[in-house]
Amino acid sequence: MKPWMRAELPKVEAALDAWVPAESPAQLGEAMRYAVLDGGKRLRPLLALAAARSADAGDESAAMRAACAVELIHAYSLVHDDLPCMDNDVLRRGKPTVHVQYGQAQALLAGDALQALAFELLVPGDDIMPPGLSAQLCRLLAQAAGVQGMAGGQAIDLACVGQTITRAQLEHMHRLKTGALLKASVLMGAACGGVTGDAWLALMQYGNHLGLAFQVVDDILDVVGDAATLGKTAGKDALNDKPTYVALLGLDAARAFADQTLAAAHAALEASQLPHVQALHELADLVGGRNH
Amino acid sequence: MKPWMRAELPKVEAALDAWVPAESPAQLGEAMRYAVLDGGKRLRPLLALAAARSADAGDESAAMRAACAVELIHAYSLVHDDLPCMDNDVLRRGKPTVHVQYGQAQALLAGDALQALAFELLVPGDDIMPPGLSAQLCRLLAQAAGVQGMAGGQAIDLACVGQTITRAQLEHMHRLKTGALLKASVLMGAACGGVTGDAWLALMQYGNHLGLAFQVVDDILDVVGDAATLGKTAGKDALNDKPTYVALLGLDAARAFADQTLAAAHAALEASQLPHVQALHELADLVGGRNH
Repeated sequence: MKPWMRAELPKVEAALDAWVPAESPAQLGEAMRYAVLDGGKRLRPLLALAAARSADAGDESAAMRAACAVELIHAYSLVHDDLPCMDNDVLRRGKPTVHVQYGQAQALLAGDALQALAFELLVPGDDIMPPGLSAQLCRLLAQAAGVQGMAGGQAIDLACVGQTITRAQLEHMHRLKTGALLKASVLMGAACGGVTGDAWLALMQYGNHLGLAFQVVDDILDVVGDAATLGKTAGKDALNDKPTYVALLGLDAARAFADQTLAAAHAALEASQLPHVQALHELADLVGGRNH
Repeated sequence: MKPWMRAELPKVEAALDAWVPAESPAQLGEAMRYAVLDGGKRLRPLLALAAARSADAGDESAAMRAACAVELIHAYSLVHDDLPCMDNDVLRRGKPTVHVQYGQAQALLAGDALQALAFELLVPGDDIMPPGLSAQLCRLLAQAAGVQGMAGGQAIDLACVGQTITRAQLEHMHRLKTGALLKASVLMGAACGGVTGDAWLALMQYGNHLGLAFQVVDDILDVVGDAATLGKTAGKDALNDKPTYVALLGLDAARAFADQTLAAAHAALEASQLPHVQALHELADLVGGRNH
């Protein structure tokens, strides 16, 4: 992890701490805070902040809102994904999952409320964020979270359990399930940075490649990692009979595919001709280097 | 039901039909459409459309988006509320609930995707809706749906099962659980109608009173209604040991309170001095007259 990342992480934590309410009806905020604070790697916020600074026109305050909004969507998806009717996971980031700690009903509501809060962060008022930017950020986030994004990808994931699927189908699932929100992190940051035109399209390519690489590496880690390193139960994919790149390609070919995809992400940054892409390069390295 | 309501309902159905996708990954859209189409009374869309027309500056296209967005939030909340870990209801609008039809995991995802779609409807692009209006509508909806609105109210509801609570606590729960979204329906419509200032505050009061009346009448119906009239299982509140106005006040006093609250809603409309409030008066009558 680079020094700039170490410097940004406490700011992200402080912003999340300020925006996820401690005072709330019936301790719902407590469950939301448990789901969000103290534990995530904050890859999505770092992507948003780095993309916002890639041009010279970054709006830091808007970028932090975008960064936290994507993280809230990510956090809610984990809470719902861990529920017994989904992956039925009891350990996440080294802690009991939200439904283990607070019960299934409160976990369901905490996830629901986190999704609403993500959008609320993006519409703080015209005096704080230009309404055109608010609307653009909400659009990017809603599309990435919804039926043609993360939720749709999870539905494919459910439908694929125990099925033999092709590499193209696996890639389609991951582009939606995890890729859409990672790409949205980059593009929401880019919107805060005033990036447009060809540079915008280049960052979209970067986000696409990075999202795919992230998932391939995740599949590799599920095989070679252990619970202590991952902060979650290892070997779950095989146990749940879920299709993965490792199952489909084998470990060596999966590693080669991850490297190839990361190289394409780096190349997209070069092609963007944006002045400040070093941080985005380093985040691609971070994704690639996750212990695999 | 008034002629104007009969005329609007097919338009609302057509808009929902167009906006909730039939084509989708892994039939997720099918579960979403099952949850939304063919069956709701569409009170919230009618409130939004009527409020949008209360002034002379209504934006009909924006109002229909606002109307459908609140209905999608309402629909998602029902899907999640019916899940076994919440109310465990098997019948809704006379049909098997979504998780009975599609399984719990798909129901969870359908609800999640409906929430995202609600926000997506409000940010169609600056050429279709002014970004300032998009941002305002997203703000009203996010606040009404989140921890200080509907989700928070549901958390209180969960915490109250089997508890003895005061009338003030019961009212607080309902203001969040159902009142917030009903009020948002009115205010989102009002925003599309260009309502501001004292008239805005008057419509907020109307929304507050109407939301409360709705819940009191709902509690009454749960006691005196039957499944055929309600389209859902009757007597669930008592069965689930949930606090209600009828349990707290008795049936006669609950009816008197409903009438008093509806009268306050009508009075707020009079005080608004808006030119076209007849439709909103009629919707208050509709809420009051729901077979109680």
